[in-house]
Amino acid sequence: MFDQLETTDKGTQIDLKGVLSSLNFNKDGLIPAIAQDVESKQVLMLAWMDLTAIQTTLKEGNVCYWSRSRNTYWRKGETSNHFQRLVEMRIDCDGDTLLLLVEQDGLACHTNRRSCFYLTVTGQKLIVTESPQIA
Amino acid sequence: MFDQLETTDKGTQIDLKGVLSSLNFNKDGLIPAIAQDVESKQVLMLAWMDLTAIQTTLKEGNVCYWSRSRNTYWRKGETSNHFQRLVEMRIDCDGDTLLLLVEQDGLACHTNRRSCFYLTVTGQKLIVTESPQIA
Repeated sequence: MFDQLETTDKGTQIDLKGVLSSLNFNKDGLIPAIAQDVESKQVLMLAWMDLTAIQTTLKEGNVCYWSRSRNTYWRKGETSNHFQRLVEMRIDCDGDTLLLLVEQDGLACHTNRRSCFYLTVTGQKLIVTESPQIA
Repeated sequence: MFDQLETTDKGTQIDLKGVLSSLNFNKDGLIPAIAQDVESKQVLMLAWMDLTAIQTTLKEGNVCYWSRSRNTYWRKGETSNHFQRLVEMRIDCDGDTLLLLVEQDGLACHTNRRSCFYLTVTGQKLIVTESPQIA
């Protein structure tokens, strides 16, 4: 399915039905999903989804992941109130990664930072480039 | 290691030595790496790296991935001339994802598009939102 779309021009449409189940999930039935702030373009985090999490996210409008550590669905914000509202879901060329453009309430990272990517490699050092915010 | 950095403030530095081998690689020894255009902030692609690919990228300055389909190292641009120059490498809070800020020569996607994320979910349709460029 994704092969056929490689050479098609902007504006080509196909029914979503069948697309989602054709995604290239890994052996655990999961696909990585990158969350990007739709306004600032900041990459906030990467987490994982299964087919049900994708369908739940599209239906409910708030992002739902699969938590690999807790082995359960994880409606982002359900305990932290830091919800991610889905603005747009994109799929990559070979159907094995999702890009979620989101409106992020507050902080995306469990360490009380806006983004999970606060560790920066600089020369022979790893530097913390954002402080945790006071809750 | 990454746990200890969660509560530390901006400016904290640790030696990179030991950090890279402490990354949370998956069972195949790989970690996902998101490539983001450092200027436009566009998310270009997601690919995979092993420890050697990370070290090669840091040493050479051009991004080197591990190709899961070809089962070999993949110096982005070696056949396409669409090199990715690494500007900054970031690591996420739990050490299981990399974010690469890059200068992208030409097109990141093998379908002749700037970004791999040209398929957009809109209602009950999947829409191609970028045309391939003429080579």
